[in-house]
Amino acid sequence: MLKLFRKSVKPAGAPPGTLVHTGRRKADRVTITLIDYDADRFEEREVTDLTECFDRLDDRTATWVNIEGLHEVEVVRSLGEHLGIHPLVLEDILYVDQRPKAEDHDDHLFIVVKMLTRDEAGEVEAEHISLILGPHWVISFLEQSGDVFDAIRNRLREAKGRIRSLGADYLCYRLLDTVVDHYFVLLNDMAEKIEVLEEELSENPTEDTLRRIHGLKHELLFLRKQIWPLREAVRDLVQSESRLVSEEVHKYLADVSDHTYQVLDTLDTFRDMISGMQDLYLSTISNRMNEVMKVLTIIATIFIPLTFIAGIYGMNFKHMPELAWGAGYYIILAVMAAVAGWMVAYFRRKRWF
Amino acid sequence: MLKLFRKSVKPAGAPPGTLVHTGRRKADRVTITLIDYDADRFEEREVTDLTECFDRLDDRTATWVNIEGLHEVEVVRSLGEHLGIHPLVLEDILYVDQRPKAEDHDDHLFIVVKMLTRDEAGEVEAEHISLILGPHWVISFLEQSGDVFDAIRNRLREAKGRIRSLGADYLCYRLLDTVVDHYFVLLNDMAEKIEVLEEELSENPTEDTLRRIHGLKHELLFLRKQIWPLREAVRDLVQSESRLVSEEVHKYLADVSDHTYQVLDTLDTFRDMISGMQDLYLSTISNRMNEVMKVLTIIATIFIPLTFIAGIYGMNFKHMPELAWGAGYYIILAVMAAVAGWMVAYFRRKRWF
Amino acid sequence: MLKLFRKSVKPAGAPPGTLVHTGRRKADRVTITLIDYDADRFEEREVTDLTECFDRLDDRTATWVNIEGLHEVEVVRSLGEHLGIHPLVLEDILYVDQRPKAEDHDDHLFIVVKMLTRDEAGEVEAEHISLILGPHWVISFLEQSGDVFDAIRNRLREAKGRIRSLGADYLCYRLLDTVVDHYFVLLNDMAEKIEVLEEELSENPTEDTLRRIHGLKHELLFLRKQIWPLREAVRDLVQSESRLVSEEVHKYLADVSDHTYQVLDTLDTFRDMISGMQDLYLSTISNRMNEVMKVLTIIATIFIPLTFIAGIYGMNFKHMPELAWGAGYYIILAVMAAVAGWMVAYFRRKRWF
Amino acid sequence: MLKLFRKSVKPAGAPPGTLVHTGRRKADRVTITLIDYDADRFEEREVTDLTECFDRLDDRTATWVNIEGLHEVEVVRSLGEHLGIHPLVLEDILYVDQRPKAEDHDDHLFIVVKMLTRDEAGEVEAEHISLILGPHWVISFLEQSGDVFDAIRNRLREAKGRIRSLGADYLCYRLLDTVVDHYFVLLNDMAEKIEVLEEELSENPTEDTLRRIHGLKHELLFLRKQIWPLREAVRDLVQSESRLVSEEVHKYLADVSDHTYQVLDTLDTFRDMISGMQDLYLSTISNRMNEVMKVLTIIATIFIPLTFIAGIYGMNFKHMPELAWGAGYYIILAVMAAVAGWMVAYFRRKRWF
Amino acid sequence: MLKLFRKSVKPAGAPPGTLVHTGRRKADRVTITLIDYDADRFEEREVTDLTECFDRLDDRTATWVNIEGLHEVEVVRSLGEHLGIHPLVLEDILYVDQRPKAEDHDDHLFIVVKMLTRDEAGEVEAEHISLILGPHWVISFLEQSGDVFDAIRNRLREAKGRIRSLGADYLCYRLLDTVVDHYFVLLNDMAEKIEVLEEELSENPTEDTLRRIHGLKHELLFLRKQIWPLREAVRDLVQSESRLVSEEVHKYLADVSDHTYQVLDTLDTFRDMISGMQDLYLSTISNRMNEVMKVLTIIATIFIPLTFIAGIYGMNFKHMPELAWGAGYYIILAVMAAVAGWMVAYFRRKRWF
Repeated sequence: MLKLFRKSVKPAGAPPGTLVHTGRRKADRVTITLIDYDADRFEEREVTDLTECFDRLDDRTATWVNIEGLHEVEVVRSLGEHLGIHPLVLEDILYVDQRPKAEDHDDHLFIVVKMLTRDEAGEVEAEHISLILGPHWVISFLEQSGDVFDAIRNRLREAKGRIRSLGADYLCYRLLDTVVDHYFVLLNDMAEKIEVLEEELSENPTEDTLRRIHGLKHELLFLRKQIWPLREAVRDLVQSESRLVSEEVHKYLADVSDHTYQVLDTLDTFRDMISGMQDLYLSTISNRMNEVMKVLTIIATIFIPLTFIAGIYGMNFKHMPELAWGAGYYIILAVMAAVAGWMVAYFRRKRWF
Repeated sequence: MLKLFRKSVKPAGAPPGTLVHTGRRKADRVTITLIDYDADRFEEREVTDLTECFDRLDDRTATWVNIEGLHEVEVVRSLGEHLGIHPLVLEDILYVDQRPKAEDHDDHLFIVVKMLTRDEAGEVEAEHISLILGPHWVISFLEQSGDVFDAIRNRLREAKGRIRSLGADYLCYRLLDTVVDHYFVLLNDMAEKIEVLEEELSENPTEDTLRRIHGLKHELLFLRKQIWPLREAVRDLVQSESRLVSEEVHKYLADVSDHTYQVLDTLDTFRDMISGMQDLYLSTISNRMNEVMKVLTIIATIFIPLTFIAGIYGMNFKHMPELAWGAGYYIILAVMAAVAGWMVAYFRRKRWF
Repeated sequence: MLKLFRKSVKPAGAPPGTLVHTGRRKADRVTITLIDYDADRFEEREVTDLTECFDRLDDRTATWVNIEGLHEVEVVRSLGEHLGIHPLVLEDILYVDQRPKAEDHDDHLFIVVKMLTRDEAGEVEAEHISLILGPHWVISFLEQSGDVFDAIRNRLREAKGRIRSLGADYLCYRLLDTVVDHYFVLLNDMAEKIEVLEEELSENPTEDTLRRIHGLKHELLFLRKQIWPLREAVRDLVQSESRLVSEEVHKYLADVSDHTYQVLDTLDTFRDMISGMQDLYLSTISNRMNEVMKVLTIIATIFIPLTFIAGIYGMNFKHMPELAWGAGYYIILAVMAAVAGWMVAYFRRKRWF
Repeated sequence: MLKLFRKSVKPAGAPPGTLVHTGRRKADRVTITLIDYDADRFEEREVTDLTECFDRLDDRTATWVNIEGLHEVEVVRSLGEHLGIHPLVLEDILYVDQRPKAEDHDDHLFIVVKMLTRDEAGEVEAEHISLILGPHWVISFLEQSGDVFDAIRNRLREAKGRIRSLGADYLCYRLLDTVVDHYFVLLNDMAEKIEVLEEELSENPTEDTLRRIHGLKHELLFLRKQIWPLREAVRDLVQSESRLVSEEVHKYLADVSDHTYQVLDTLDTFRDMISGMQDLYLSTISNRMNEVMKVLTIIATIFIPLTFIAGIYGMNFKHMPELAWGAGYYIILAVMAAVAGWMVAYFRRKRWF
Repeated sequence: MLKLFRKSVKPAGAPPGTLVHTGRRKADRVTITLIDYDADRFEEREVTDLTECFDRLDDRTATWVNIEGLHEVEVVRSLGEHLGIHPLVLEDILYVDQRPKAEDHDDHLFIVVKMLTRDEAGEVEAEHISLILGPHWVISFLEQSGDVFDAIRNRLREAKGRIRSLGADYLCYRLLDTVVDHYFVLLNDMAEKIEVLEEELSENPTEDTLRRIHGLKHELLFLRKQIWPLREAVRDLVQSESRLVSEEVHKYLADVSDHTYQVLDTLDTFRDMISGMQDLYLSTISNRMNEVMKVLTIIATIFIPLTFIAGIYGMNFKHMPELAWGAGYYIILAVMAAVAGWMVAYFRRKRWF
């Protein structure tokens, strides 16, 4: 089942800036990748000691440090110290349940987003991703190793498009954009599920259909909870006048904001559709029960009086004149047929069948 | 079934400004029509090479380039390059699921709207339409060939009204107004469907009625999703102080804004009515089941005890004194009539019939 | 049935300012009444040619031109031309489905309201009323002849109160106030209907009760749709700093705004009450069905086993020792009584009756 | 029943400032009490002629004129004329359905509130109270005589606390605060009713429980309608920069505002609780019906087949070999027991009991 | 049961600033703890006479006075007098139902929060906590003795982290942060309950499941009522430009604001989930009743006609030719089998089983 709320490890009352990794350990080891580039140059290497990155961060070429795995608190702390990042920011990097947000800390921007993917079991999984954008560098923190940013890495390597010439702010936008693009993959997926369920509903809804509608609603709540705060975060980014983001990149951020609104619009439409499906399911159930009741009522109402008549002439009274009549049996059969016929006519008039 | 969400072709993580046509190919070939006019002059021709339009776009007479068919990405790209349109705008022109919006790019306004019509099967279809308004030109991008703007073309040809003297901004308003006017056609249509369903509901609601109410709700959601963002877009246009829109045309845009609100008002009223119809349907079903139950209960409750009495005197005990009584049969019949009468009185007192 | 949306005559794509009367023709002929007054003077006459009014409009005494009947488009056009009214305003005067609004056109204010009355059949009817307030004149456009403004005309004639000395802006306020006052008449009416239905609900709700609740909800939706936009319109009027409205009259407009809010408050309360009534109806139906089911279950559950026992001793087996017992019949009757007694005790313990 | 909307007496179209008392006459006669005080002096007397108050109103000591009974329109008019109160304000004083509001008229503040109490029958009753705060005086208008302000009168008499030294604005605050304090009494009352109903719901809900939940909801709607506009009114007072209210008293008004929010918060929580109770009631009814159905189904399903078997051997065919068997009767009884046993096992497996 | 509204002791109409302790007496005696510290010094002692604290409050080292127990009104009054706290603030300290808020009184900030914990019975309990932040001191008022702030006391004693060097505003933040951190403990708890109920719902929902869902909803309403106003209070704190809060601590307060939003987000998600669970419960009940009805209908519909046939041949007419047929019995059995077979086929076609 989707966990809508994960238990935090940090005890209540612990001081702020306490660096504790609050999530499950999703990566075996922490992988740090350093990419340093400008329009002409490209350098990529995996580093084991974070200090190797420090001179690259300080020079004026664009630098991207990608850190996969959050369980080594020391890595985050030393990076924070070198770059002068506030302890509260470092805490948020490690706090995997932190809701999406964007903060302008003058000399760096701090962005929290959720990468939403499906695991092998088909469950939606939220990965906590933090981005810090400095003057000439971006640092990205991921919970686990993965290939989400491979497309960007490839473009950097191959110097395709303008990515190599547009600096760290553009890179940061591209990382953010990649995360938001993945939301559309999930939307496609949900749209397909909704279509399947709509068809099932109109053909032969079962209790299982209802459970799957409920599951879909659950998933929707989860997605909405992860994406809703992003809307405000990206709007803040667009409206901020940080000197770290060039005017050119501002336009791109406005595009991300646009996409976020589109995702939320679609989620709202999905919610309305799912709620409509639930209503339809309930009405269908009511309708069916009505139909079942009608069959029962028709059969019972026709045969119960007839059985009563048969019962009367099954009584063993000595003196029952009808029993002796020669045509008694046929008369009674005729009476029964008349009663049944009248009943059928009555039900027809009531449009019961 | 209405697709509330169409799959996008562009892979997640693709760079911004990637020009990919994301919709179905609705037109066989791309048709480009150039109309160049001022109060005195009118020129209209179909062009195959876009470069033929460039000098018309650059001169000071009003120019309207209408492009039908979005699958030739090259057309959009070359036009964008000549006029200095941002790649993100070009991407939105091709991205047929882009929600309605209006953007002020200083030297041009970019407007996305949805033309909503019914196809032959009666399904609502949304056509993605983009308008770019420059200093003396309007470029309109349509997904398919069609006659939606024919009325405007005719007025331009015949120089009716002030359309020839009022410039490109007025033309752009007229295109927008035509799209919004079409929404009223759909509203008329939905209003009629609602009336038919209301009548059906009050006469003889069936499961099919419910399905059609559900379908109508679906359609409403679709319409709302397409039109809702337009409200904000048009308001942005009205409030923008772009030098591309004259004060005169601002008044007209305020009128479009007014119409958009009216459409959304009406959609909201429709939503409330449809939800009221669903409630009424459910109540009617409940009422009917109640009525069916009453008939069953009355019949069963009257005859089950009578049948029991008959059953008693159908037993084959040797010693049952009543059986030997001369009037036994008639006494029992009288008892049965009394029981039945008492039951009927009871139900009458309970107002069951 | 109430039409929540009326078909418009104007074809989609028609140019703005196309003057078409979109409603049913409610008046036989167009009646134009000219009232010209100041504190000392009062002149009232019906005119056939609008040009007779023009010099009265131009002088500095207060002038009220009341036009009943909208089907003569020429009347509206010529008046508009003489006073320099924008074609879009003239279009809105004729477009009877225009939602309420207030527009400040510098040299005149344009106000659209809906007069809501009940026709002979008891249906709520919305009359489209437009008011134009100029420096020394008010022009009112009504769909049909009627007596809605008679009280004001009388006060003008009789020079009662300050109405003759306070100018055209005060007159315009009084017209608006009269329209809003009529809403309270409808509210009284609805309140009475709600009371009747509440009583019916608590006594003997039938399917007809439900239909009338549904009808009331329908009516409420209609009223809300007509009045809701007025709230904003009047607020705009109060907040506008038009030189056409004196400070004194501003206070009166604030009072109208107050009334509008009160009407909408009451409508919201009504909506909550109606929805509460629907819930109560449904619960009552459920309760009743529950009661019906209980009666059925009690009767069936008591007699079905007894009938089975009687059935056993009605079998014709040769060797059934009980049948030969002398007291067999009485023993079986006692067994049946015991079974029935135990059943009744069981149901009593379950509090079924 | 609570009247959610009272009919107004004033005919639609009557001129503004028409002074008509719109409510029921709740007081036998109009009682006017004059209290004039400063830190050192205290004078209290009942006056019959309003003119006796005029010199007290004009001097610089704090004066409180309390008027109980609104049916003598002349009292309100003459007071209004002496103090220069706008006719619209006077109209609102007499219009007992006026919603709560606060208006800043430069030289006086006009406040409308609703005193909510329970009458002897336990029905909530709204008394229309108007307060006018001038430079050194407060005038309070009440619908009926009562003791709501007795506590304040006593403190004034006994010169307890700072009330005598703090002027008319503080007195006005105290009157307002007393009204809001009374809301908490009603909340206490509703909280108790909710608790009783919650308990009833969890023990033995009946149709009467439902009616009382509905009644409570009705009451809640009534309260909310009376209190909701006050929120805005008090906020307006707090934010107004009227010179009539000292900075010290502003703090006290902020406290009243705080209380108003708390009342509305609590009403919202109550609404959610009541709606939760309705849901629970419906579910309980559904559950019960389910249980009733199960009993019926179990009994009917077990005995109907058995009765059928008995019916077979009750037939009078000449040639029915089983009837002649010596053990036939016992074999059939065994078959019946087997059928019944199998049925019971089936229902057990289905967890029906 | 959770009390959503506690009766206040203060009589309606009592003067403002009346110091009455409105809650239950939760502590045996009032405990006053004085902590005075700077980076180098630490002094902690329990005081019995409040005057012992006064010189510590007045000096420039950070001072924390923690008061546990609110029933000794005199303690609050004397402290208020020494520090010049407004009587309304003192009233709010004692009024345990005061909703959360933050007020800037220039020379001190007043903050009301609710500590939410579970008592031994597992019920959520709200403790009213007031904080006053002065230039170099914090005073905290708690309803009862407890260990909620022990972690902070320990850090102060042990001079861990920067808490000793950051002054009273940081201490105040830490107290607030501790309270908000405790909310997450409750959220964890609710999340677990929701999971258990979700599982129960999908396996074997009973009436008890429904009651627990209802109880959970009740709890949620209670939490929301306590936490919702805090959101605004903390935002006010963050946006206030009080000189009492350093820029450094402002950042920390923004973090608390962030947490408050996260708590409310989660509560909203919980609310949606619980409402989804209620819907699912109702649908499951409907489904089950449908299934029960089907079994009843199938059995009754098959056997009622058969029993009728058996009844016919159980009649005692003299002349019933079939009875004399040699194969009559077998023919009738075959007819019965045919009827039953046809019924079963009919139900199969209807997909009833």
